[in-house]
Amino acid sequence: MKAQIFVTLKKSVLDPQGSTIERSLKQMGYDDVDSVRIGKFIELEINGDDKEKIQTEIDEMCKKLFVNPNIEEYRFELL
Amino acid sequence: MKAQIFVTLKKSVLDPQGSTIERSLKQMGYDDVDSVRIGKFIELEINGDDKEKIQTEIDEMCKKLFVNPNIEEYRFELL
Repeated sequence: MKAQIFVTLKKSVLDPQGSTIERSLKQMGYDDVDSVRIGKFIELEINGDDKEKIQTEIDEMCKKLFVNPNIEEYRFELL
Repeated sequence: MKAQIFVTLKKSVLDPQGSTIERSLKQMGYDDVDSVRIGKFIELEINGDDKEKIQTEIDEMCKKLFVNPNIEEYRFELL
């Protein structure tokens, strides 16, 4: 089974990388860009078909490894 | 309008960051993990309602700024 995990900074946390890209885009002439936020995108292949078990595992992986809960939030999809 | 852009390494390109995470996950006991690939996830807010114009713009932004076409590929969704 394939899983896609999206890790983003919390809305309340400043995203300097996003702000820099936003400025670049405006300098390039894309004046209609209003906000840019950068995150991580993790694609996992997991053996097995037990959707619930895999969901629990991915939730654990996010909490133990992928996500800094102080500044980041996450969501994931199974495909 | 909100856009989500996913930038990933091409399948033919080695992903050392992904391999490291895969090893870590296995050491943590997640033996059913088969492959891990890391990418970038960019969330854009763009003023305007002209879906086609925005699609063209985002495609340009990817080619000019976000994506290294030698080793990366991208896809995006408008929400």
